[in-house]
Amino acid sequence: MRTRAAVALAAGKPLEIMEVNLEGPKKGEVLIEIKATGLCHTDEFTRSGADPEGIFPCILGHEGAGVVIEVGEGVTTLKPGDHVIPLYTPECRECPSCLSQKTNLCTSIRSTQGQGLMPDGTTRFSMLDGTPIYHYMGCSTFANHTVMPEIALAKVDPAAPFDKICYIGCGVTTGIGAVLNTAKVEIGAKAVVFGLGGIGLNVIQGLKMAGADMIIGVDLNDDKEEWGRKFGMTHFVNPTKIEGSVVQHIVEMTKTPFDQIGGADYSFDCTGNVKVMRDALECTHRGWGVSVVIGVAPAGAEIQTRPFQLVTGRVWKGTAFGGARGRTDVPKIVDWYMQGKIEIDSMITHKLKLEDINKGFDLMHEGKSIRAVVEF
Amino acid sequence: MRTRAAVALAAGKPLEIMEVNLEGPKKGEVLIEIKATGLCHTDEFTRSGADPEGIFPCILGHEGAGVVIEVGEGVTTLKPGDHVIPLYTPECRECPSCLSQKTNLCTSIRSTQGQGLMPDGTTRFSMLDGTPIYHYMGCSTFANHTVMPEIALAKVDPAAPFDKICYIGCGVTTGIGAVLNTAKVEIGAKAVVFGLGGIGLNVIQGLKMAGADMIIGVDLNDDKEEWGRKFGMTHFVNPTKIEGSVVQHIVEMTKTPFDQIGGADYSFDCTGNVKVMRDALECTHRGWGVSVVIGVAPAGAEIQTRPFQLVTGRVWKGTAFGGARGRTDVPKIVDWYMQGKIEIDSMITHKLKLEDINKGFDLMHEGKSIRAVVEF
Repeated sequence: MRTRAAVALAAGKPLEIMEVNLEGPKKGEVLIEIKATGLCHTDEFTRSGADPEGIFPCILGHEGAGVVIEVGEGVTTLKPGDHVIPLYTPECRECPSCLSQKTNLCTSIRSTQGQGLMPDGTTRFSMLDGTPIYHYMGCSTFANHTVMPEIALAKVDPAAPFDKICYIGCGVTTGIGAVLNTAKVEIGAKAVVFGLGGIGLNVIQGLKMAGADMIIGVDLNDDKEEWGRKFGMTHFVNPTKIEGSVVQHIVEMTKTPFDQIGGADYSFDCTGNVKVMRDALECTHRGWGVSVVIGVAPAGAEIQTRPFQLVTGRVWKGTAFGGARGRTDVPKIVDWYMQGKIEIDSMITHKLKLEDINKGFDLMHEGKSIRAVVEF
Repeated sequence: MRTRAAVALAAGKPLEIMEVNLEGPKKGEVLIEIKATGLCHTDEFTRSGADPEGIFPCILGHEGAGVVIEVGEGVTTLKPGDHVIPLYTPECRECPSCLSQKTNLCTSIRSTQGQGLMPDGTTRFSMLDGTPIYHYMGCSTFANHTVMPEIALAKVDPAAPFDKICYIGCGVTTGIGAVLNTAKVEIGAKAVVFGLGGIGLNVIQGLKMAGADMIIGVDLNDDKEEWGRKFGMTHFVNPTKIEGSVVQHIVEMTKTPFDQIGGADYSFDCTGNVKVMRDALECTHRGWGVSVVIGVAPAGAEIQTRPFQLVTGRVWKGTAFGGARGRTDVPKIVDWYMQGKIEIDSMITHKLKLEDINKGFDLMHEGKSIRAVVEF
């Protein structure tokens, strides 16, 4: 069949809207009609050429929602008409990682996915001249139709609106999951969120769900204060507008009459800046502070600190897709949205048509959007 | 009173044996007769001048065992004749850290202890000419008598031999505690220990207690293989005698027919070398590997890695005194020794008289001792 897609022909170039060929689903695969897709910084990381593992031509996009059109041989858990969210982290429930019960990082199709291929080592997309087009993060949601493995699709409530729940395919789950699955924040905690973009705001609403007492947001842009407060942030810090270091500032803010040591119980880096990751670790409380890296750092960048920070009880960890097992957890998060336990609508600041997808990246760079969503 | 001590008069100088003045215990303090003390790398770190926080003149030593001679006003939990192990990490059970139930790093007397002082801001030791001599890590066990706060003394089984259980005051508890309290290793785990000295061997026996399946020891010195195997090590790696990196080597060793990802479930750095700390993190398993820093790094040295290591599920943490709450856990470890659950005797490779204490540091540098113990 043919479908319409925004194709990244080469690193650093704007996406081009074109008709492409799409082969039907093979064994264990499913053909999806994408109804909406968000634009995430990770798409831009690859589009711009900053991603050393980027492969072109490819169809970007990994934050989508859609409907099953056709299932391949052996598919048992999905049928045409089911509403689904594509998962860039699949959940096969059979590999050593899934069975470990210790991680969400399913490894069953990791090697082919990393090479822009379906599990059988080929692509389903091609240019009209037959040139293969690579898949992206196993999803390629910047196409009106895509083919995905059954294990990489979460079946969700059919009443949920595509243009909102597509965001659960990455940003919402990553932010909320980092709090609930990775940090396991408890009621009464003090937490700091560095970077109040599309991930940081979801970390904030995760912290609010978890019952945190202090939710400190840190951003260089004062406009983000209003956004943060909307989702539950209790304190805002602009590091350019304080005396001294942000670490010392947060340590002071978190002191109590009883606890004169100070420091956050939990911190989250949503910036991808390795210097901020260090601050995020070091502003946590001696003895038990946990800092979670969420942001994706530039190629080759390294985090560093004195080992004394760890020896005195701080823990440095990270999260991918918020530690969520996609097929198990994503449908629950959709339910939370439908029940009003979490908010998404106001974070979808821009709606675009596929033709205007490059404008979405401009909005991202200008810091004007929380999330721009393309509707098909 | 007067007592005999090995005094560090200045950084980098051999210790000098001399008579010193010792004031009796003030409120909340206890006078101890030290019966035996181990020599630990941390003593040497300070003696040598490498420790930027070293204060001289001081009486080093923090791994002792002894008997209560006299108690000061208000002391309720100890009486003359009790056998005790000094604790460089006290346990007041009242400060925010103790009450957090999340850390062993009691902070009630931290600031004075760090300055070589008793909690009231003075020293009990002085030269015969009246010059104050600083305390060290709140213990100063290189003296035949010392004064310590009640909260920094663990009361232990009086049947236990001083020349063995003194080692529980630091090395044994640090190694075993890192496994049981900090990493919480579970039965069947695969673990790697970097550095098979006085801490590493105790990590190994902790791993054996915890039921680890694979206990891989890593050391540059082949002589350590026999030592490691004695305490439960199942595999030995000398990084200078393998092809390629130690990280890749350990990843290969830990693969199974089912799990072709490989990597250790837990790793422990007992070297203090920041490059080794990085290897220790990176050789752990994607998704759930936990690496624990135990070794003390040189002043100013920093650990570094790509944040991707954390984002893909590895956790970097550290431990001080093995995460043990001294007054609660140290008596239990003494009981384990008395019950034969752990071994200490063979690790005490050298016995010295106080006069020969400097020989103990020579043995340490020559790699000839696991633990040298001074008996009074």
